[in-house]
Amino acid sequence: MKIIVDAFGGDNAPLEIIKGALLAKEEYGVDIILTGKENVIKDTAKQNNIGLSSVEIVNADSVIAMDEEPGEILKSKSDSSMAVGMKLLANGGGDGFISAGNSGAICVGATMIVKRIKGIKRPGFAAVLPHFNDGCFMLCDCGANVDCRPEMLKQFARMSSIYMEKVMNINNPRVGLANIGTEPHKGTELQHTAYELISASGLNFIGNAEGRQLPQGVCDVVICDGFSGNLILKTYEGVAKSVMGEIKKLFSKNLKNKLAAGIVYSDLKGLKNKFDYHEYGGAPIMGCAKPVFKAHGSAKANTIKNAIRLTKNYIDANVIETISAEL
Amino acid sequence: MKIIVDAFGGDNAPLEIIKGALLAKEEYGVDIILTGKENVIKDTAKQNNIGLSSVEIVNADSVIAMDEEPGEILKSKSDSSMAVGMKLLANGGGDGFISAGNSGAICVGATMIVKRIKGIKRPGFAAVLPHFNDGCFMLCDCGANVDCRPEMLKQFARMSSIYMEKVMNINNPRVGLANIGTEPHKGTELQHTAYELISASGLNFIGNAEGRQLPQGVCDVVICDGFSGNLILKTYEGVAKSVMGEIKKLFSKNLKNKLAAGIVYSDLKGLKNKFDYHEYGGAPIMGCAKPVFKAHGSAKANTIKNAIRLTKNYIDANVIETISAEL
Repeated sequence: MKIIVDAFGGDNAPLEIIKGALLAKEEYGVDIILTGKENVIKDTAKQNNIGLSSVEIVNADSVIAMDEEPGEILKSKSDSSMAVGMKLLANGGGDGFISAGNSGAICVGATMIVKRIKGIKRPGFAAVLPHFNDGCFMLCDCGANVDCRPEMLKQFARMSSIYMEKVMNINNPRVGLANIGTEPHKGTELQHTAYELISASGLNFIGNAEGRQLPQGVCDVVICDGFSGNLILKTYEGVAKSVMGEIKKLFSKNLKNKLAAGIVYSDLKGLKNKFDYHEYGGAPIMGCAKPVFKAHGSAKANTIKNAIRLTKNYIDANVIETISAEL
Repeated sequence: MKIIVDAFGGDNAPLEIIKGALLAKEEYGVDIILTGKENVIKDTAKQNNIGLSSVEIVNADSVIAMDEEPGEILKSKSDSSMAVGMKLLANGGGDGFISAGNSGAICVGATMIVKRIKGIKRPGFAAVLPHFNDGCFMLCDCGANVDCRPEMLKQFARMSSIYMEKVMNINNPRVGLANIGTEPHKGTELQHTAYELISASGLNFIGNAEGRQLPQGVCDVVICDGFSGNLILKTYEGVAKSVMGEIKKLFSKNLKNKLAAGIVYSDLKGLKNKFDYHEYGGAPIMGCAKPVFKAHGSAKANTIKNAIRLTKNYIDANVIETISAEL
């Protein structure tokens, strides 16, 4: 199995990406293709005493920046490490693709370069988030489509269920529709129709899920339009990070508090890991004809390694074939 | 000044509501009218050794439940403690109204019974949330209007700015538009047009604000449609509460951890208070012709007391007159 990795995606590229890819190669036995400026990749590896003899490098002359217009992946940045990697994937040069770069560009590239699974209206950006009942849930769409039709939400529900069952090993995943109340009449026209469609889909639909229920782990899949989903995702991560930051400040405030921190150190670390998105690694672009994963923009080596593991599991579990068959 | 309080709104009614109203009377010198079943109010007070001689009671035969259809406030529940209180307010029987009851019903009642300020298209439900930079921000709309037009968002921005300036004493409040990226082209048609309108409004508009920025306190006012706003509000509260719950569990896990908790006790308590919505008390229905406040559904006496203080400040600061004048 060959995984293509965008060596220039994310805040810590290329060093952390290279390190993560090599860790994954060693741990999971996958072959790696790195895309990006070959000389920079080689120099970075050399400076850090990393041997690259076991990985393939495909040169790409540019990089699409985090704040660049996503459509540029098809235009001025068609020679970027992301675009080159996606073309390679589309042409059969690898089995899956990972980038920690510009989310919008990944979605555009997934749709326009790698293409959709036949019958899928629009791919959905599907992040996996930890909840506070010892598990995680998939939130889809997290921002690929700001405007959605009900039929798209139904497809997101089906695809996400397949992912959670096959990759995350959750039996008969519970699907919830993000909404402002639990009663079926809540929300806009989009939610009303999506509620009916998902109810009739044969999926394990538990109905509407409110924002406050998500951290409690009431469902394994949460469906929404990309605008709401992106606000939920970032608020969720932002608040968790802020509270943990306050806890950290509290424990380093003075000697007395540092002493207390020492006492609960391992438990605190466990709590921190519990909602560390680096552990969950990647967000698949669901509905794409080949496996495309987005790793967190601040991905470090371990995040990339985990994203590669998820991509491998995704391929091994035949997620795309299952989606095709169920459509 | 006379504040009308729905004695039967919220999970802890009527006892906590009665207690909170009396605390506010004592502390802020306001007159109180309680609405609801008179005999139950009197019995509850008697059983708890609370003297009611200083407050007025206006009888109301029913209660609108938390999960009831909001429109019922105008129909089968037009004799409820909430409807009776709002009619009293509309007819000049008091200067402001507070309820911890059904949010949807409060919005419907505010619009249909108390009515809007002339020129206001739709009232907005405006919660005040703590952020992690020692302050708070107003989020409007949090659920009164699931579908919004750009002009409504502009009005929410103006009204919320006036509130934060006059009631929360924030000079020249920074206004942000909730969005999925900071660039002006992000979001749907609604955000694009609202962005232009708010930019040209003369308000202190800082542009788009992403979900992850909200807990950092990047703005004092966050504007959005009621669907997104409700998801943000509840996700925000839910995640903060869940993380704090985990911390609490951690510290009561064993004797060793309990010892550590003892060491940092006062700091932990400070942190807990920092994002305790009970301190912020109430969410005004902005755009209503008279002051209508929603207190949190789980309001205890202290929450009600704080909501009454905010209502008093709102009246003293002539927020409604200022909104009228600026339209």
